[in-house]
Amino acid sequence: MTRLDIDNRPIGIFDSGVGGLTVFKEIKKLMPNENLTYFGDTARTPYGGKSQEVIQKYACEILDFLQMQNVKMIVVACNTASALALHKLKTITSLPVVGVIDPGVRAAVKALKGDKIGVIGTKATIKSNSYQSRLSRLRTNVEVIAKPCPLLCPIVEENMHHSEIAKLTLKTYLQDFKKINIDALILACTHYPLLKPLIKEFFDNKVTLVDPAYETAFEVKEVLQARRILAEPEKTGTERFYVTDSPESFSEIAVNFLGRELNGECTSVRLINNDE
Amino acid sequence: MTRLDIDNRPIGIFDSGVGGLTVFKEIKKLMPNENLTYFGDTARTPYGGKSQEVIQKYACEILDFLQMQNVKMIVVACNTASALALHKLKTITSLPVVGVIDPGVRAAVKALKGDKIGVIGTKATIKSNSYQSRLSRLRTNVEVIAKPCPLLCPIVEENMHHSEIAKLTLKTYLQDFKKINIDALILACTHYPLLKPLIKEFFDNKVTLVDPAYETAFEVKEVLQARRILAEPEKTGTERFYVTDSPESFSEIAVNFLGRELNGECTSVRLINNDE
Repeated sequence: MTRLDIDNRPIGIFDSGVGGLTVFKEIKKLMPNENLTYFGDTARTPYGGKSQEVIQKYACEILDFLQMQNVKMIVVACNTASALALHKLKTITSLPVVGVIDPGVRAAVKALKGDKIGVIGTKATIKSNSYQSRLSRLRTNVEVIAKPCPLLCPIVEENMHHSEIAKLTLKTYLQDFKKINIDALILACTHYPLLKPLIKEFFDNKVTLVDPAYETAFEVKEVLQARRILAEPEKTGTERFYVTDSPESFSEIAVNFLGRELNGECTSVRLINNDE
Repeated sequence: MTRLDIDNRPIGIFDSGVGGLTVFKEIKKLMPNENLTYFGDTARTPYGGKSQEVIQKYACEILDFLQMQNVKMIVVACNTASALALHKLKTITSLPVVGVIDPGVRAAVKALKGDKIGVIGTKATIKSNSYQSRLSRLRTNVEVIAKPCPLLCPIVEENMHHSEIAKLTLKTYLQDFKKINIDALILACTHYPLLKPLIKEFFDNKVTLVDPAYETAFEVKEVLQARRILAEPEKTGTERFYVTDSPESFSEIAVNFLGRELNGECTSVRLINNDE
């Protein structure tokens, strides 16, 4: 790698709130030398029950903000925004944009041994049909069963993902998947990886859990390599956080998602409303 | 009442989303002749975990909008916004502004036979200390025990308020209240009235449930009477709804809260951002 191939600008990662930190964490683990800028739209979270029009508007405002921070690529670390706004973002920026859905789908197809795959996510993600249509395109002989699980996000955000409530809620949502014997389950919401232990237990360890966050980190690395915009390898990357509501409450809840404190400044910002 | 005392302008009622419809419903029941304009900030819902600064900003934008609709008074049909933004709204408008907290507190004090009262609400409402401080001011010898119950809103919004999940969640949140033998419980969130049957059952009908929505309707009537701005008594009032996200999904979920379909036009609007 020559010095010309080095690009120390940060990777811009965004989510409706804290959930995208599971993606942030995987990127950090895979590329500790990259500078990372995370944006959480905490004043308008969650996106999962909102309409495509509203989600696209929010995503475009965040894209503008991240571009002003001079990022070198955009990671849509939110399944709902990936499902409903990724295409739109790609049409309005020249930066590379990676979402969580395509990496998740590819990993699921690789992992799949049988022919039945489940997808769980927010109402907006499941309704968008993004996972279902991509899976069917990549594998013709696969049966995709998708289910919205809107209570799981608040349960994780309340740090109750080990509780009896979480167990009962998972049982309620997942019992149909058990009945039809799915082979793999895509965790199509960035909050769900925190529920992995309980989901594994529910399926007696017999179902492969696909975590798009993990796969997305590899896709991000591939894109940076292909474009020759990886950061200097010797350095430790910096972390920077922007939120639309209080930095304190974000920092507090972030610990559940990262398993550690934030290691960089967290600032509250106001987005420019494009349409006024 | 002379014709001069008649004011057919609508009452403006707002909430972070659909929950305020429980207040809307009580006002409609008490004063079927009043024209009602409801505003639900569905593109930014929920408010319950957000900061005072953000909630005040949203409330002021909604106030501006409702004033442009020529309303004669403002009802803050949201406990979180009442707790964190009512005072601010009163300083910037000449219209009468009624929140849900004062009526709820007065009713609770009237209903209270013993000396222990519980309050359940969103994180922001409970953290604001609004109910606790008002109760202590009105009754010196009362013990107030307050608890945030953040999972109850999403459970109600998912129409799961009769489910086993709802039962287990209520048990988790309310068992401390049972242990210390509270006499009354204030349902300090507009979603909670839908959980009344399960809450009553949990307390074996031994705890008085105070619903601020019901009390607020009487306060609204009193204010209109005192200011002599009641609507024409012979007519049936109209209904008008404005939301910041999709009118379709609002209309759909509204049925759970009203027990019937919306009986008036529902329109999606964009608010003006004051600070840009």
